[in-house]
Amino acid sequence: MIRRIGGHTIGFEEMPSIIGYASVAGKMESEGPLGKEFDKLIYDSYDGRDTYEQAESQFQAEAVSEALRKSDVSNEEVDCIFAGDLLNQCISSSYGLLNFEIPYLGQYGACSTMAQGLIMAAVFVESGAANTSMCVTSSHFCSAERQYRFPMEYGGVRTPTAQWTVTGAGSCVLKKAKKGPCIARATVGKIVDMGIKDANNMGAAMAPAAAQTLKHYFEDTNTSPEEYDLILTGDLGEVGSKSLYDLLLLENIDIKSRHNDCGLMIFDREKQDVHAGGSGCGCAASVLCSKILNDVNSGKLNNILFMATGALMSPTSSGQGASIPSIAHLVNIKNR
Amino acid sequence: MIRRIGGHTIGFEEMPSIIGYASVAGKMESEGPLGKEFDKLIYDSYDGRDTYEQAESQFQAEAVSEALRKSDVSNEEVDCIFAGDLLNQCISSSYGLLNFEIPYLGQYGACSTMAQGLIMAAVFVESGAANTSMCVTSSHFCSAERQYRFPMEYGGVRTPTAQWTVTGAGSCVLKKAKKGPCIARATVGKIVDMGIKDANNMGAAMAPAAAQTLKHYFEDTNTSPEEYDLILTGDLGEVGSKSLYDLLLLENIDIKSRHNDCGLMIFDREKQDVHAGGSGCGCAASVLCSKILNDVNSGKLNNILFMATGALMSPTSSGQGASIPSIAHLVNIKNR
Repeated sequence: MIRRIGGHTIGFEEMPSIIGYASVAGKMESEGPLGKEFDKLIYDSYDGRDTYEQAESQFQAEAVSEALRKSDVSNEEVDCIFAGDLLNQCISSSYGLLNFEIPYLGQYGACSTMAQGLIMAAVFVESGAANTSMCVTSSHFCSAERQYRFPMEYGGVRTPTAQWTVTGAGSCVLKKAKKGPCIARATVGKIVDMGIKDANNMGAAMAPAAAQTLKHYFEDTNTSPEEYDLILTGDLGEVGSKSLYDLLLLENIDIKSRHNDCGLMIFDREKQDVHAGGSGCGCAASVLCSKILNDVNSGKLNNILFMATGALMSPTSSGQGASIPSIAHLVNIKNR
Repeated sequence: MIRRIGGHTIGFEEMPSIIGYASVAGKMESEGPLGKEFDKLIYDSYDGRDTYEQAESQFQAEAVSEALRKSDVSNEEVDCIFAGDLLNQCISSSYGLLNFEIPYLGQYGACSTMAQGLIMAAVFVESGAANTSMCVTSSHFCSAERQYRFPMEYGGVRTPTAQWTVTGAGSCVLKKAKKGPCIARATVGKIVDMGIKDANNMGAAMAPAAAQTLKHYFEDTNTSPEEYDLILTGDLGEVGSKSLYDLLLLENIDIKSRHNDCGLMIFDREKQDVHAGGSGCGCAASVLCSKILNDVNSGKLNNILFMATGALMSPTSSGQGASIPSIAHLVNIKNR
């Protein structure tokens, strides 16, 4: 059964388990601090296909295949998959998942998609709408760069606040089970827009959404940051993480000692030229579905908050002078 | 409680009610056969804003406001809204819904979004994840035309199989209640790709997905077309509807006497130059949330199947020579 907790949070009584998960990452990610944690490393930006977009589809397909294999579940057993990505019309998902023949519900949460997909998959399993569900998301530096910024050949100089789109994917299989990391609670975010217009400073745009969702969650559950082993944000990067601390301190919430950010974990910012950190749907997805869930599985982490953030603009809206609306969805993951 | 029926269908025991719904449509739609059924007609393509994209956001906002007003529900009472559209990164939804401050879960199902949103909203209400939920979607001829085809100023000639993107939006408010049309069952579709590459013939690309979902639904529920007052497809138009009949006849399913299509209903194809019919997320949404739900409400229709179809390609995938993957989601709506 699912029950509402406070104004914004939902609680899962049976707590659906993540019975399997997998991550796929690219060359640059393999050279970062989490390189050894990913299930599959793909060094070719094209992954043997003709275009970067097709390669990104392939990354999703590889993550799903691997997650199914690790959970010992076949594609026919999966009642629905929640997937999305950053490309226009979410083509990484629609082309990547075509051959699996799993009922498909496309999601768009920008870089918050991994958390959104987990919430959906958990609601469907807990409610009985699905016996087994999945979620997957991805991003690819080259496909994102040319869609959102400049042609790859242009070699544009990046601002210090810019983040580097992660080439990677992550996927989870959920089911009612007595093993594995499980989903205990979730908070669906509201769209927040504080007027930031700089598309090269997503961290600043997304921090207010992250602060709001986290505040709602702590209020609803009557818990405090110290009760969690880790508060992991999606990809706020360096700029956004600092903004988040500041915004929460105004509410007397101090998360510093518990906080980390997928965008800060995936790259070594001293050795790798990624400016403010990693970003993209594949950032939170590949970090969660490797190091983090490994640590929950092993008992190193017992009770964590995973909150992925998304910037809901497009090159069209930015070109028309609009500011950047953002969102953050939170999932409380426990070791059963 | 939600239970699975057969391989692909879910059944809602309490059957969440659509306690309110609203439609908004543009000038050309106002001149069609359903002109008098829409809640709000907006004759200005810009809706008083600076760009077509902002106008489309405004259409969503108007549909949501009107649906809330008609259901006598305030935005604070809504636990989550499922929304999406055709524009890159679903900006009609993120900008259109910003001011409502309702927890937001972005959906991407192309023209199937209205059915997808209804399924999500119903699952959240039935399971207790939301007390009150909403869904909304939109499309706009001008914003779609320039994103998917040519600049408006170009005046490109359209092929006979092309469909005309509807300028409109539709929104529903769902809650457990003993009144109003209700959601009894739903079938989530799988992605189907039969190799159609002509982006000006979406009907042909989407018909196989529609046939598959309908076949699954009839098998799972052990029902036949004659048991329904109406089988309404999203926007297959003339070409797709004929393909659907042919594909289903191969399975010994004859829906002709019960079938209609939102894309064929919304325009008068003898007087309006729309070629194969209407299309776009706003087509199925505005037709469902006007004429159709009005007829269910009044008891003229008691038991219907609403199946919206979507083509999951993008200009990028088409430009790279890929065929068009499609999907169809089905909702069984009853008069309680």
